[in-house]
Amino acid sequence: MAAQPELEHPRKAFGWAARDSSGILSPFKFSRRETGEKDVTFKVLYCGVCHSDLHMVKNEWGNSIYPVVPGHEIVGVVTEVGSKVTKFKVGDKVGVGCMVNSCRSCQNCADNLENYCPKSILTYGVKNVDGTITYGGYSDSMIADEHFIVRIPDSLPLDAAAPLLCAGITVFSPLRYFQLDKPGLNVGVVGLGGLGHMAVKFAKAFGAKVTVISTSPNKKEEATGRLGADSFIVSRDQEQMRAAMGTLDGIIDTVSAVHPLLPLLSLLKSHGKLVMVGAPEKPLELLVFPLLMGRKLVAGSCIGGMKETQEMIDFAAKHDIKPDIEVIPMDYINTAMERLLKADVKYRFVIDIGNTLKESS
Amino acid sequence: MAAQPELEHPRKAFGWAARDSSGILSPFKFSRRETGEKDVTFKVLYCGVCHSDLHMVKNEWGNSIYPVVPGHEIVGVVTEVGSKVTKFKVGDKVGVGCMVNSCRSCQNCADNLENYCPKSILTYGVKNVDGTITYGGYSDSMIADEHFIVRIPDSLPLDAAAPLLCAGITVFSPLRYFQLDKPGLNVGVVGLGGLGHMAVKFAKAFGAKVTVISTSPNKKEEATGRLGADSFIVSRDQEQMRAAMGTLDGIIDTVSAVHPLLPLLSLLKSHGKLVMVGAPEKPLELLVFPLLMGRKLVAGSCIGGMKETQEMIDFAAKHDIKPDIEVIPMDYINTAMERLLKADVKYRFVIDIGNTLKESS
Repeated sequence: MAAQPELEHPRKAFGWAARDSSGILSPFKFSRRETGEKDVTFKVLYCGVCHSDLHMVKNEWGNSIYPVVPGHEIVGVVTEVGSKVTKFKVGDKVGVGCMVNSCRSCQNCADNLENYCPKSILTYGVKNVDGTITYGGYSDSMIADEHFIVRIPDSLPLDAAAPLLCAGITVFSPLRYFQLDKPGLNVGVVGLGGLGHMAVKFAKAFGAKVTVISTSPNKKEEATGRLGADSFIVSRDQEQMRAAMGTLDGIIDTVSAVHPLLPLLSLLKSHGKLVMVGAPEKPLELLVFPLLMGRKLVAGSCIGGMKETQEMIDFAAKHDIKPDIEVIPMDYINTAMERLLKADVKYRFVIDIGNTLKESS
Repeated sequence: MAAQPELEHPRKAFGWAARDSSGILSPFKFSRRETGEKDVTFKVLYCGVCHSDLHMVKNEWGNSIYPVVPGHEIVGVVTEVGSKVTKFKVGDKVGVGCMVNSCRSCQNCADNLENYCPKSILTYGVKNVDGTITYGGYSDSMIADEHFIVRIPDSLPLDAAAPLLCAGITVFSPLRYFQLDKPGLNVGVVGLGGLGHMAVKFAKAFGAKVTVISTSPNKKEEATGRLGADSFIVSRDQEQMRAAMGTLDGIIDTVSAVHPLLPLLSLLKSHGKLVMVGAPEKPLELLVFPLLMGRKLVAGSCIGGMKETQEMIDFAAKHDIKPDIEVIPMDYINTAMERLLKADVKYRFVIDIGNTLKESS
């Protein structure tokens, strides 16, 4: 029988967890391991609320292990480092994203693509190498091998830095890998949520002309105004879609709902790339002919490796790229989840863990 | 009213055409234009029988304009060149593939990708720039601007050279573009027909380890024997498929029937590429999650540009790569079409136009 979460490790920890597929979160006592020789332990100050947190607390992917302490956009300040840690010291501002471990020996790991390591360990909700379940950033402390710790530059506010660790890298990495980071390209972004608004900002910083494609006409003003997109297409407007046919070099598609690909493929130039970063649960319909006729491709991309995640954070700091966030107290999380379900947030909730997570709450 | 095919151009021509969606071919008198200043006219000696010929004569894509004179794997000997032709002279061995014209001014044309020019003119069955319908290589003569003429090296037999012009370039081009042409890669080929057997040969010549994936266990001996593939997987054999999971860098999928993509995506390593060169008429099911988990892609590719087609022919000559063909007389074509429908050919019919197309037939 597994040890109780509160006792299985020597260090006390406290957070909020979902206990069942209702997804309702409530205070939860658990424990963290001692700081190992390569470990960095840090006090959590902020944690972003990712849409996958919502899937996981409700067991919508069918693999949740309760209690689930969500959160993989975690930033804070180092409180302890192991004897063999070389990159961090007490007091450093750091973050952890979606992974806390990987095999470190496969080709993907050797290529700094730990995110594609088949043995990578997610930050929460999975069995770690020691057999215990990982707990995420809706909690007072965090620990990981220094390889999986990212440095947060001083110029980035810690609250706004948090969502970069998942939403940011998720769109930054495919823009780089699929060579959509060259100035002058025409890049489309489908869906203007947590991921989409970051895709607009990074693509603009790379020098692209950015087109937002959305089902909601009322997002136009914000997309082309404050967020700086160059144009906006309502995907349900046949005329607008037709007028934009064959104009885009690439598209970052952030939509997780089942949706038609054909209209998006039509927006691409020859050799254009449609990159999915959302994960619809059911298969999408793919008509092959349009791929053939323009040597187009449909691809997927999932977060990024640790090296690239640091590069992304440094790039964001240098170019003053910050997610638009709504900072919330810990005890607002269940309301925030309801609002997230309705896409009622611009564009990311970030929990003020440092000031509002109280063991008495 | 359009002029009669026999009278609309000054030069008599003779071939075999389908008159309706029965697809039955029979002798047909038509005409070809005078040799323009940039044109090359040649006597057709051989013409390959492509599966798309079968689709076109039966109007299975819904766009056939009857009479249809099929054939876009055409080789022969130059009989006349225009005053401004610089690359060819009378007596040269030449070929024409799937295109006879393009706009010559768009970005794709500038990039030697005439095959992706939106205004490219197919070799048969479409309206040419002068408003007349194009007629293909099941005929005694052919004409095209020299830009769309390929030189056939002396070391290639003319009959075996013909199928390179469509089947050859269709698989060569994606191997190059998607960087599956590096020695030591593991390349899969789905479907062992006209395209598939050429994909095996080119991939082997590039230095790949080649795995043929087929529904037919009885193709194993031939695939790994005479064709030189390194291994063979029966796609319906769950155990074989499971054993090969995550082993391939790329797959050339030549199958035109609707088929599941998920098992093929599973065979790919991270960052693997599934390239479709067949065109199933109905949408395929695409589950996005497997794309995300390994940054995989599904792409399409369609023949190749003129520069690359010449490179492919020269590469084939240099490496002694020849399609496996069955040479047939012109009046066997209707039987050949029936056999093609049953995949009863190893692996390409080539019509001996020079010796068997008779105006009296």
